[in-house]
Amino acid sequence: MNFSIIRVARTILNVTDLDKSRAFYVDALGFIETERTNAHIYLRGLEEAHHHSLILQKAEKPSVEAIGYKVEKEEDLIELETLFKSKGMKMKWMAEGTQHALGRALRVQDISGLPMEFFCKMDKAERLLQRFDLHKGSRVQRIDHVNCSVANVQMAHDFYVKELGFACSEDTVDEAGHLWATWLHRKQTVHDQAFMNGVGPKLHHIGFWLPDPLALIHACDVLASLGYAQSIERGPGRHGLSNAFFLYLRDPDGHRIELYNGDYLTSDPDNEPIHWDLDDPRRQTFWGAKAPDSWFDEASVVLDIITREEVPLEDPILEKKKPEFMI
Amino acid sequence: MNFSIIRVARTILNVTDLDKSRAFYVDALGFIETERTNAHIYLRGLEEAHHHSLILQKAEKPSVEAIGYKVEKEEDLIELETLFKSKGMKMKWMAEGTQHALGRALRVQDISGLPMEFFCKMDKAERLLQRFDLHKGSRVQRIDHVNCSVANVQMAHDFYVKELGFACSEDTVDEAGHLWATWLHRKQTVHDQAFMNGVGPKLHHIGFWLPDPLALIHACDVLASLGYAQSIERGPGRHGLSNAFFLYLRDPDGHRIELYNGDYLTSDPDNEPIHWDLDDPRRQTFWGAKAPDSWFDEASVVLDIITREEVPLEDPILEKKKPEFMI
Amino acid sequence: MNFSIIRVARTILNVTDLDKSRAFYVDALGFIETERTNAHIYLRGLEEAHHHSLILQKAEKPSVEAIGYKVEKEEDLIELETLFKSKGMKMKWMAEGTQHALGRALRVQDISGLPMEFFCKMDKAERLLQRFDLHKGSRVQRIDHVNCSVANVQMAHDFYVKELGFACSEDTVDEAGHLWATWLHRKQTVHDQAFMNGVGPKLHHIGFWLPDPLALIHACDVLASLGYAQSIERGPGRHGLSNAFFLYLRDPDGHRIELYNGDYLTSDPDNEPIHWDLDDPRRQTFWGAKAPDSWFDEASVVLDIITREEVPLEDPILEKKKPEFMI
Amino acid sequence: MNFSIIRVARTILNVTDLDKSRAFYVDALGFIETERTNAHIYLRGLEEAHHHSLILQKAEKPSVEAIGYKVEKEEDLIELETLFKSKGMKMKWMAEGTQHALGRALRVQDISGLPMEFFCKMDKAERLLQRFDLHKGSRVQRIDHVNCSVANVQMAHDFYVKELGFACSEDTVDEAGHLWATWLHRKQTVHDQAFMNGVGPKLHHIGFWLPDPLALIHACDVLASLGYAQSIERGPGRHGLSNAFFLYLRDPDGHRIELYNGDYLTSDPDNEPIHWDLDDPRRQTFWGAKAPDSWFDEASVVLDIITREEVPLEDPILEKKKPEFMI
Repeated sequence: MNFSIIRVARTILNVTDLDKSRAFYVDALGFIETERTNAHIYLRGLEEAHHHSLILQKAEKPSVEAIGYKVEKEEDLIELETLFKSKGMKMKWMAEGTQHALGRALRVQDISGLPMEFFCKMDKAERLLQRFDLHKGSRVQRIDHVNCSVANVQMAHDFYVKELGFACSEDTVDEAGHLWATWLHRKQTVHDQAFMNGVGPKLHHIGFWLPDPLALIHACDVLASLGYAQSIERGPGRHGLSNAFFLYLRDPDGHRIELYNGDYLTSDPDNEPIHWDLDDPRRQTFWGAKAPDSWFDEASVVLDIITREEVPLEDPILEKKKPEFMI
Repeated sequence: MNFSIIRVARTILNVTDLDKSRAFYVDALGFIETERTNAHIYLRGLEEAHHHSLILQKAEKPSVEAIGYKVEKEEDLIELETLFKSKGMKMKWMAEGTQHALGRALRVQDISGLPMEFFCKMDKAERLLQRFDLHKGSRVQRIDHVNCSVANVQMAHDFYVKELGFACSEDTVDEAGHLWATWLHRKQTVHDQAFMNGVGPKLHHIGFWLPDPLALIHACDVLASLGYAQSIERGPGRHGLSNAFFLYLRDPDGHRIELYNGDYLTSDPDNEPIHWDLDDPRRQTFWGAKAPDSWFDEASVVLDIITREEVPLEDPILEKKKPEFMI
Repeated sequence: MNFSIIRVARTILNVTDLDKSRAFYVDALGFIETERTNAHIYLRGLEEAHHHSLILQKAEKPSVEAIGYKVEKEEDLIELETLFKSKGMKMKWMAEGTQHALGRALRVQDISGLPMEFFCKMDKAERLLQRFDLHKGSRVQRIDHVNCSVANVQMAHDFYVKELGFACSEDTVDEAGHLWATWLHRKQTVHDQAFMNGVGPKLHHIGFWLPDPLALIHACDVLASLGYAQSIERGPGRHGLSNAFFLYLRDPDGHRIELYNGDYLTSDPDNEPIHWDLDDPRRQTFWGAKAPDSWFDEASVVLDIITREEVPLEDPILEKKKPEFMI
Repeated sequence: MNFSIIRVARTILNVTDLDKSRAFYVDALGFIETERTNAHIYLRGLEEAHHHSLILQKAEKPSVEAIGYKVEKEEDLIELETLFKSKGMKMKWMAEGTQHALGRALRVQDISGLPMEFFCKMDKAERLLQRFDLHKGSRVQRIDHVNCSVANVQMAHDFYVKELGFACSEDTVDEAGHLWATWLHRKQTVHDQAFMNGVGPKLHHIGFWLPDPLALIHACDVLASLGYAQSIERGPGRHGLSNAFFLYLRDPDGHRIELYNGDYLTSDPDNEPIHWDLDDPRRQTFWGAKAPDSWFDEASVVLDIITREEVPLEDPILEKKKPEFMI
């Protein structure tokens, strides 16, 4: 392929009450607010040197507007357009200036129906990593990954690996050997993008990287102090998959956020995927605690890139299961 | 009163398989094994300068032989004998030499039927706090407290406070104002002894102090690595009561151990007890996660100090409830 | 003795610029400001349920007004008066109302010339331990100890142990067996009060307890972010003595503050003092780093309780040395 | 360029006593020993899935045999050979089988005289990241970077950036605008390779990644417990450059090891280098502590790839200085 995708770079979440969302993300979790306009709040983590990695967009109903990936150079967008066109996918250009602080972007409804977006340029912002006096709450450092529920994991996996150049770090197969979940990366961490077998297309969660495990514990304490104990859905715990120390939260609109620390370097081309199977006891959450049903049953709907209607949901092709190891 | 109880100092647990217990307490949790004999393993934490704070004693069935308190001086034992005699309690002297590494001890079946023991002298052992090369697993530093289920919390509370000189740091009352649980201390921490409303007399758990929160997380990881994920019953989490960062484990015989870090100093005589009530949302586990049923329904039976038969169980006088804030 | 001293409870520091001091203690270190008046700022730590443990008092020159101890009951003050009178010490009563938020207090120029103060009552304040959203900077939890340079350590030691009821947890002797430094406690930690051989009487530092080691590291980061890198005098490091993980800071007037975490329980009457000697390599800072000269040469002068003049300084009776293990 | 270097992958250190070195690296620091032969010990970190990242090789005198980089594919080695040949550099092929557990390798004396090595294949080993029961000492996870003293930093920088495809994350310039030090990376961290102005060519240190800051503090404690306090040369502290929480150690032969945690992601092609200048107070160690002279004056000599003689040393072209911010 003649293009290079760098990493997952942002997500646009539709939320129903910007003030409530701001209280959660900025006051409690400690995201840096780069800018706020009438209809948008632009957030970034402490090490991020770009304008934002999360947009909260005022809307009537919660949903996911787009999941954005950064590419290496502008020409990569043309190559991607050619690829998507050849596959007959629904696409849309967003000219520079259309989206605040962003260069031009190519949106596509991907093979699973997810609203993906590719861009090269975003305005710069100050890296606040050494402004420790501004570190608060969970001390979020950067966006790490997104995890999506899709009806056909194998199809999504194949497209991202063979057509988009992702590498697989870990996966899960069922008893029949069908791919049940997959962890894919472009940057050199365990993942930028995961797909799990489920009703989809949906965004299951956005993962953010924390500086250390105690920041995650402190996040729990601060959330509880501010009345957000109900927002803590699962964890803290250790994932078998990815080895991450994790915490799952639900924001005021139900969007799921993962606080995450502790995976490993995946720079090597000969890095071998770790295979987990559904009947392996080690597939479970490493410490043994079960995930609540909500974790399996609920996720954020996504929008059609053209109509901005909710994308219709499909049942997964594999019999739905609730193993406890999913990330 | 003319005696001074210093602190909870040891517990004697009857276990069915010393090797299995040793693997759990020494190899996984990192207790220091001071000595092992045919029928006993003597364990201590890293800062403890006495011979042991936990005895594992080979037995046919799991149970609790005794909960031991250290007193200031030998004469205090005589004063305690006088007190217990005046109350008509079942007592028994264990002459020096009867119990390994211990001076003479006075055992009593306390007002709730618990097998308590008082002693002044124990053999010394090396404090290994600065032998960091020997710190393993959870890096247990010292015994912190015991928590017991009793049928009548108010009665137990009154006896320990009025007759034995304990102070109350925190408590919980039900809607009718009845005392549902109480945290009592002699040393200057939140507790040496807690009582909760429940089927009793039983030992609910023994709490051990860890040096920092990451030691607790590392304990989870080590336990899981060694196949003890099923031993993790609850947590990690933050208690509203006591403010402790906690983890509850079940040993191979089902005895419950709490790993514990983070309470506060209770040295001041004008320290006011913190009252929690059952309908206060803050009474719950600080981060909101529910405790599993086993945490409420299961605890270790205790033995009669004379017959060494299991002490018969009584139902609690308050309607049994399962609030989630108990420690 | 017929009185009971509970613990070191507060220090009154004379400072030259309240705003500068506030920026350091409140904005950077995260002390809670209970109250501010024209001439005073009253500070407390996150777990402290009393009005303050540190007073910053506007003055022309930096000095120490008083080091305050809490006693068990009002009558203890009378007993202390009797004791000090019998020793011919300079004393002064401060009637209730004289000092803000405090009951009546007895001030005495102690055997080394230090301005000590004893009181029973202080106004209560909210314990903010579980208001994690307010935890900032070093997350100071409570006052832990004071350390003073005195000309005759043995004399100070004897008075505090034999007349005031302190216990010794650790000490240091020189080659000739003379007591060079001593760590004394009333509450059940390694110390409330340490004395070191040096030009005195002076206050060497006030130690404050932090919740965990990472809070100390975060404190360094926040201090550096806010331009206080020059305030970091020594550490972070591990003390051989006391086992504390430590950091020494100099406030804007040069008063020395220790951030401190990690000692051990000293509740037991048979706790044996740990003896360190000057030629033992283990006496040094546990990790081997040397303390800077300023740490040995500089400390805060103290005031006469009657005249409020600086107490004249005396050279120490033992040949001055600079071992690196002092706390 | 038609090749792709992945990352720094190993270093071969000549040491004079394998047992002493093993005690330091394995027993104290917790490296995993993959294999030991008569003349070699092969070590890896806890997350490393290859045979080793550090070789200790028995020798008469301490020195550095080679610094090894992993490339994407075998053909890259041919491309590198072509490049080095065109520059007239001294080269040498090591056929597969020549070096244990390694495919064929190309060694070159680089533009500064450093003995670099490139290879594609190394035997696999088990990733022990989730064998937490085996984590000891500093819990080293993986090799992170090497830092070398060279006489001409600008020349080294230019060769690695323009000819080898490295990107610069941070650098330092002197008052005249000359490049004084540079941090270069291939993998997506702050560096694989740093060059500093100094007597060279020498290896200043090898940096290893730890899972969290407390692992570094625990490493200090374990080192001190085992009698290695003298091995702690500098730190712990925070680097302004790279933001790393660091500790510098000297192994039994004087080779310098950095324990390292906390940098940031450098995946983006538009990542702008952070420039530090020698007179900027922020250039210093973030917390303000000075590095000892040894840190500036001592480093490991390197060998000629053909003769295995020590490479002669040259003075640096920039006036030698000792700023305190170097990494």
